[in-house]
Amino acid sequence: MSILIRGGTVVTSETTFRSDIYCEDGVIKAIGENLEAPSGAEIVDAGGQYVMPGGIDPHTHMQLPFMGTVATEDFYTGTAAALAGGTTQIIDFVIPDPEEPLMDAYHKWRGWAEKSVSDYSFHVAVTWWDETVSRDMGILTKQEGVNSFKHFMAYKNAIMVSDEMMMASFHRCRELGAMATVHAENGEMVYYLQQEMLKNGITGPEGHPQSRPPEVEGEAANRAIRTAQVLQTPLYIVHVSCKESLEAVTRARLEGQRVFGEVLAGHLLIDDSVYYNEDFEYAAAHVMSPPFRPKDHQRELWRGLQSGNLQTTATDHCCFCAPQKAAGRDDFTKIPNGTSGVEDRMAVLWHHGVNQGKLTLNEFVKVTSTNAAQIFNIHPRKGSISVGADADIVVWDPEMTRTISAKTHHQNIDFNIFEGMEVKGSPSHTISQGKVVYKDGQLNVVKGAGRYIKRPTFNTHFDALKIRRELTKPKSVKRPPMAAE
Amino acid sequence: MSILIRGGTVVTSETTFRSDIYCEDGVIKAIGENLEAPSGAEIVDAGGQYVMPGGIDPHTHMQLPFMGTVATEDFYTGTAAALAGGTTQIIDFVIPDPEEPLMDAYHKWRGWAEKSVSDYSFHVAVTWWDETVSRDMGILTKQEGVNSFKHFMAYKNAIMVSDEMMMASFHRCRELGAMATVHAENGEMVYYLQQEMLKNGITGPEGHPQSRPPEVEGEAANRAIRTAQVLQTPLYIVHVSCKESLEAVTRARLEGQRVFGEVLAGHLLIDDSVYYNEDFEYAAAHVMSPPFRPKDHQRELWRGLQSGNLQTTATDHCCFCAPQKAAGRDDFTKIPNGTSGVEDRMAVLWHHGVNQGKLTLNEFVKVTSTNAAQIFNIHPRKGSISVGADADIVVWDPEMTRTISAKTHHQNIDFNIFEGMEVKGSPSHTISQGKVVYKDGQLNVVKGAGRYIKRPTFNTHFDALKIRRELTKPKSVKRPPMAAE
Amino acid sequence: MSILIRGGTVVTSETTFRSDIYCEDGVIKAIGENLEAPSGAEIVDAGGQYVMPGGIDPHTHMQLPFMGTVATEDFYTGTAAALAGGTTQIIDFVIPDPEEPLMDAYHKWRGWAEKSVSDYSFHVAVTWWDETVSRDMGILTKQEGVNSFKHFMAYKNAIMVSDEMMMASFHRCRELGAMATVHAENGEMVYYLQQEMLKNGITGPEGHPQSRPPEVEGEAANRAIRTAQVLQTPLYIVHVSCKESLEAVTRARLEGQRVFGEVLAGHLLIDDSVYYNEDFEYAAAHVMSPPFRPKDHQRELWRGLQSGNLQTTATDHCCFCAPQKAAGRDDFTKIPNGTSGVEDRMAVLWHHGVNQGKLTLNEFVKVTSTNAAQIFNIHPRKGSISVGADADIVVWDPEMTRTISAKTHHQNIDFNIFEGMEVKGSPSHTISQGKVVYKDGQLNVVKGAGRYIKRPTFNTHFDALKIRRELTKPKSVKRPPMAAE
Amino acid sequence: MSILIRGGTVVTSETTFRSDIYCEDGVIKAIGENLEAPSGAEIVDAGGQYVMPGGIDPHTHMQLPFMGTVATEDFYTGTAAALAGGTTQIIDFVIPDPEEPLMDAYHKWRGWAEKSVSDYSFHVAVTWWDETVSRDMGILTKQEGVNSFKHFMAYKNAIMVSDEMMMASFHRCRELGAMATVHAENGEMVYYLQQEMLKNGITGPEGHPQSRPPEVEGEAANRAIRTAQVLQTPLYIVHVSCKESLEAVTRARLEGQRVFGEVLAGHLLIDDSVYYNEDFEYAAAHVMSPPFRPKDHQRELWRGLQSGNLQTTATDHCCFCAPQKAAGRDDFTKIPNGTSGVEDRMAVLWHHGVNQGKLTLNEFVKVTSTNAAQIFNIHPRKGSISVGADADIVVWDPEMTRTISAKTHHQNIDFNIFEGMEVKGSPSHTISQGKVVYKDGQLNVVKGAGRYIKRPTFNTHFDALKIRRELTKPKSVKRPPMAAE
Repeated sequence: MSILIRGGTVVTSETTFRSDIYCEDGVIKAIGENLEAPSGAEIVDAGGQYVMPGGIDPHTHMQLPFMGTVATEDFYTGTAAALAGGTTQIIDFVIPDPEEPLMDAYHKWRGWAEKSVSDYSFHVAVTWWDETVSRDMGILTKQEGVNSFKHFMAYKNAIMVSDEMMMASFHRCRELGAMATVHAENGEMVYYLQQEMLKNGITGPEGHPQSRPPEVEGEAANRAIRTAQVLQTPLYIVHVSCKESLEAVTRARLEGQRVFGEVLAGHLLIDDSVYYNEDFEYAAAHVMSPPFRPKDHQRELWRGLQSGNLQTTATDHCCFCAPQKAAGRDDFTKIPNGTSGVEDRMAVLWHHGVNQGKLTLNEFVKVTSTNAAQIFNIHPRKGSISVGADADIVVWDPEMTRTISAKTHHQNIDFNIFEGMEVKGSPSHTISQGKVVYKDGQLNVVKGAGRYIKRPTFNTHFDALKIRRELTKPKSVKRPPMAAE
Repeated sequence: MSILIRGGTVVTSETTFRSDIYCEDGVIKAIGENLEAPSGAEIVDAGGQYVMPGGIDPHTHMQLPFMGTVATEDFYTGTAAALAGGTTQIIDFVIPDPEEPLMDAYHKWRGWAEKSVSDYSFHVAVTWWDETVSRDMGILTKQEGVNSFKHFMAYKNAIMVSDEMMMASFHRCRELGAMATVHAENGEMVYYLQQEMLKNGITGPEGHPQSRPPEVEGEAANRAIRTAQVLQTPLYIVHVSCKESLEAVTRARLEGQRVFGEVLAGHLLIDDSVYYNEDFEYAAAHVMSPPFRPKDHQRELWRGLQSGNLQTTATDHCCFCAPQKAAGRDDFTKIPNGTSGVEDRMAVLWHHGVNQGKLTLNEFVKVTSTNAAQIFNIHPRKGSISVGADADIVVWDPEMTRTISAKTHHQNIDFNIFEGMEVKGSPSHTISQGKVVYKDGQLNVVKGAGRYIKRPTFNTHFDALKIRRELTKPKSVKRPPMAAE
Repeated sequence: MSILIRGGTVVTSETTFRSDIYCEDGVIKAIGENLEAPSGAEIVDAGGQYVMPGGIDPHTHMQLPFMGTVATEDFYTGTAAALAGGTTQIIDFVIPDPEEPLMDAYHKWRGWAEKSVSDYSFHVAVTWWDETVSRDMGILTKQEGVNSFKHFMAYKNAIMVSDEMMMASFHRCRELGAMATVHAENGEMVYYLQQEMLKNGITGPEGHPQSRPPEVEGEAANRAIRTAQVLQTPLYIVHVSCKESLEAVTRARLEGQRVFGEVLAGHLLIDDSVYYNEDFEYAAAHVMSPPFRPKDHQRELWRGLQSGNLQTTATDHCCFCAPQKAAGRDDFTKIPNGTSGVEDRMAVLWHHGVNQGKLTLNEFVKVTSTNAAQIFNIHPRKGSISVGADADIVVWDPEMTRTISAKTHHQNIDFNIFEGMEVKGSPSHTISQGKVVYKDGQLNVVKGAGRYIKRPTFNTHFDALKIRRELTKPKSVKRPPMAAE
Repeated sequence: MSILIRGGTVVTSETTFRSDIYCEDGVIKAIGENLEAPSGAEIVDAGGQYVMPGGIDPHTHMQLPFMGTVATEDFYTGTAAALAGGTTQIIDFVIPDPEEPLMDAYHKWRGWAEKSVSDYSFHVAVTWWDETVSRDMGILTKQEGVNSFKHFMAYKNAIMVSDEMMMASFHRCRELGAMATVHAENGEMVYYLQQEMLKNGITGPEGHPQSRPPEVEGEAANRAIRTAQVLQTPLYIVHVSCKESLEAVTRARLEGQRVFGEVLAGHLLIDDSVYYNEDFEYAAAHVMSPPFRPKDHQRELWRGLQSGNLQTTATDHCCFCAPQKAAGRDDFTKIPNGTSGVEDRMAVLWHHGVNQGKLTLNEFVKVTSTNAAQIFNIHPRKGSISVGADADIVVWDPEMTRTISAKTHHQNIDFNIFEGMEVKGSPSHTISQGKVVYKDGQLNVVKGAGRYIKRPTFNTHFDALKIRRELTKPKSVKRPPMAAE
């Protein structure tokens, strides 16, 4: 099975050049001008198009059991929708219930994911703490290729971790060379505000953003960052949605701390007016956490991508349909949190980022693919166009114009937050493991073709931590100087 | 009993002018040039000197029971030392044990304070939470003239409050028009680092600063600030000691939030090298929380005063002598935290602030007196030179040069962190309640002459909160706009 | 002539209290509860009202000759309109033409101002440089009570100063103890953009904001600030209108630099959409420099006032009527720059500041009066309610509701940028020099009653500069350390 | 001529992996594990070593005529020294005298550079302005492969440009797709301070830093940045040496502006105490502009590299020996400005950056090579390890320890600012154009082997500018809204 991608302009995170690409046995074999196609090779005509690393969505929740229901999008439909949008790998989450052994949850999710059509990996959430959790983190990193652990600072009385647990787990991450990640919202504050809303008769979806204002995210982000600083471990903050948490990330990065931020496509483009729509279904369909924000946050998030303070884009893809959302008709706190996006992310980023002159071509590749691959340590196998890399490639037609709609998307959900948005620029072909799996609007996928991708520990950012805080003993300073300056 | 202060230059928080001041019955009766002295009036010659509002130290702990011992300085000796330094009022703290009724603790402290020689007030600490605490806060504000409540975010397993308690208490403060205050250090992090230090054999005083690095203060300050923001209440942060917490204060203030910061004289002038002295007694004598910081923090703290982001200066005066400090000889976590300063604050601020061109004369008055009076709502009775104000006045000789030393100070402690510092500028006279209580180096005080000063609620900063967060119901936004900008 | 203001609530920059105020011979004689009215004293009933220092507008241009015409509002009508709005003093500008001796211009303006009905002072602009300018600055400060000099960084080919001149003049200000002030817009950039606009056929008023974007103001503000820093002199930036220059001011203040910022009422409330109105007269009426800005700048300017980084509010009152504005019908660069506001400033600040919970009562007094008095060194004579101060007082009715309109205002201009704005809170009485000059909507003023107010040099902020940069000679550092940290 | 680099760990700007590299005909032909060596191929044993792109020093001045003398290091010796240090390309500067045609100067420098032993390119300085300069910029970009133009904001009365010239030139750069670069120091301020120093009898080298304080750099950096913002063109600031200019760069980048910053190895490691050494020769040897800064700036510069706000490291290599420096013995303004570094840059960056845990391996490659290649648009030919790239490679021995000294360095200067610094980590082999030119401490270079490298215009950062400021005409906004928010 071999493919020759001919006549395109290759765009990587660092450079742009005219080249053909030849793929065989699922990997890139040659990059160069005027490559010869071996007989039998499929020819992909990329003339006038860009050839880029397939997207990586580092934040999805396929078939997640959550808030009393299960997300409608499963690993089969979800990875297929991803491929249709040019995304060739997802990183999903194993989320144990409190007290549930991490290994049990891990194996359960691995089982669910076997039907995937694209490659995938897993972050594992730490939702409780004891010695067995610590031990299982060791097993997961050493044997199972998990190199990132997530901590929910929200969802009180459910999966929220205490600061004490978070410190213990970050410490363990440091030891294992795993990336600590957090969902940064202050769960105590959210709980307090939810009660205040309900007490004041605010029961509709408008209560959702009002009970999760940006400051609760800013607080939690900063707390996680300071914790990581004290424990001297790198940190990745999922779905940075507002100025307040971006400010915390930026402050830390300016001080040289190793902190990384992810932004969701939705937060870049949708504002919180959606929650004030009189149509419950419409409003509820947008309920996710953190919520969409007032419009002025969007400019700051784009600037975060431009300045490199936010490194990755994701979707938090977690599909709940109208009948599921209806559970919260009389109480917004019961609306299952989540919406789709895995299929749309790259196109909306291209249209609003590259076409509008916000992002360079190379930055587009960085924030949709390469940076995630580096941070989660699967680069250059993923996220790169290089000889030896996996042939996960998207051929991007910058002239293709289409309108996003739930009626036509491949995602298994009855709603699309980008409904009606016209985008210019979309994949003409998606290539996964060296096979054309999407072409001319048609998917050609095989259930179970996706592979679980192991991720090694100790990514490059641990290099910059090799000198830890030195404990210092008294020196013979008999009489230290007194006054300032 | 009357006094005419003649020939001085009056300095207030706002202006500087030549004037005499006539005081009678404990209050200022007249301000003007060439005032006539009634017969019998004591004449204070202020020629060539500055006449300023007496200092207010908003942070002292006289005879505090703490860490298994009791501070050596009591309300009698402590307020006397204060007067010798030009400080005419202290605000001390009532600190109930967890489970101890607030009113019980309050009455206990009121009893202890009766021997004071200068006026005084009390902040009350909230160290636990239930309905009775909430009720007692009501009684204290409405009947007892308490308008500020303190929350310790440090001292795990002792007086530390949880975030949940802190939210409940801040909410109550808002309702009552009282100022919420916090000791901002992340108690979980401190505890973790203390254990790490001891595990690594760091048992000496050098473990103290290493287990309380600036980031633990920065984290807590930001958390308290965000909590106050969500609850829309003003906040006062005691002893801001480092860039990290100053940054949090400054950020919030730049966004218009009503946050106030206090800095201790010691943190402006002493650095953390003291903890690395080989002499345990010397190092332990400096143990207080937050600890002294690396030198570069000092410049930032001065800038905080200059830019108005820090409003008050205090001392956290809490005296423990060498035998008490010895309790931590083998384990720094057992060294009683605290040192002196109530007598020295104004002189060191003058010398390093005014003489070195860092602060204007008017700023000196603001940060040593007026701002505290305004924030804690006893202005213009205190902290001002105005007709009708209490005659708490310091006559300041800018030419007087002396050397600070434990051998000569009036404080009841065997150590002085400013030992050997030569300062130019000191009080020639201190006037309390219209009487000259300190003159030519001699105290002339009366045990019990000090009065408890009640402080009304709802200071001016509550004006700026009158529009609270409006809860918003759905509006008929049928189809909100989609894309950014 | 005496007045007793009875039953009001006195609000100063620092405090709020119930008190009567007795004024005689133009000054405040007594402040206290239940004062007795001498026979013949006029009684002003201030029940339910606030009694505050009269406003000071530190930035007006009465009858200014500018851009080929002369502002319609003269010192008589202008100071009367000011009084009707509660403003009891203006500080106007003497603006010499290049090559015109400063003393000549000064005397010309003094002559024009003799018909004023309220007190007034003058800043003097430095628009060119040679030894005579330097000498005249000396005469103006020492003999004429001028303590501030203005520098236009915009208006190329007219009154713009070069950096070299600005340095020379700032240096001279430092020497004389005068405040340097700047109009901060980069005149080179404005000129370049104006040419670009005209070249592109943008000739209407919309070219005005597009040729003076916020970055040209940010640049100039920062350049002036750095110049003042190098020359170690205080600096006052007039009409800070945007985030970019506020950021420069704030940065400097956070570093302890003595920089002050003024904001105009218009910039706090009007946005740049006015320039895109199809009605030329409407759009042109708003042409002033700096122009009104996109809406999101307003929040930042309010925050500047709240955080104390902006200290004063002004208007840049400079009236040109429609026939004058018509000069630029075919070329926006010819529209005379300016609009009104001296009458409206306090009411719009109150309504949008105090009523909406943005500013406290005391902050309102600070930013409308006291801060200007302190910075320009006429406090406590002006800007205070204190015994001995000038009886320039406004009695403010917080319940009075009215609609601002050019039809009803006292300003001599055919347009009002606040047209149609309903405000709650306005002066019921204005008292100037101890006389009621405005009451129940009626002015009762005397042409020429206004006095020229001299202002001494070396305001308090020079205290903080007393230690200048010390020139340092070589020390015997034989081999300095090499590596970082 | 072919080389096989065997057994090393390849480090690129993005990733780290074990691989052999095969080079032939001056380019990289194959990257992979266990590559076979063709017969005749030279084998480089890279076992236990890192294989990285050769360094690029984007800021050197070989044989520069400056301040009445000529730099001692010429293109032959200078590029040889560079190779000895692992740097395989320099970008030097063509600096026309005012009025000198750009093409004349360009050809002169091209002639001088023909003796180079490594590849090189040229920035061209714009030191004056008229239509011929504009025309020559067009010729240089279109025919000569120059894609960057430099502007000196300092050196009044010599090569300093006015703001007006700078705007014209930036505009032209934008048009041509060339990168504008600046030396950011405010020449007016420097001149003023130099005169002040000399007037005060400060004539020694200590006058150098005192007449060029950080604020003069901060001002100029910000002015250039705002100019680039108005003209919407990317900007590169050479030798960012202090917090003040880094702050300006960072602020702009956080707002999404395309601004880049270079830092010199010297500024990261040397502080200004060197200028206070009593030995004139020692002090004068360090005279360069901007000068070395107080120590606390170094931490900020490192943080700038860590956070990505500074992208490149350089040296400003410009050698003057003691007899040349002696010209300024009685007047520091006459000391020729400049020192060496091209040989030492990579080793000191490695030692203080990588070894001390400040920079990751990949970041080391970015800041010493790849970023410069991208910004100056010669990537991936230079600055990358990829098939088809030029075989400019350094094999880095992380265990090699040596002491830097003028006695042993290859640079043609009698002084080394890093004298006595022990570094761990240095090149074992440098490969230029596929040949081993440095090995085991021995250079093996051929005079004239270096090639002039043309650089195409419109680097990737111009992508993000494709939407320029849209000029806007009036819209039918009849009555725009009035009040804020």
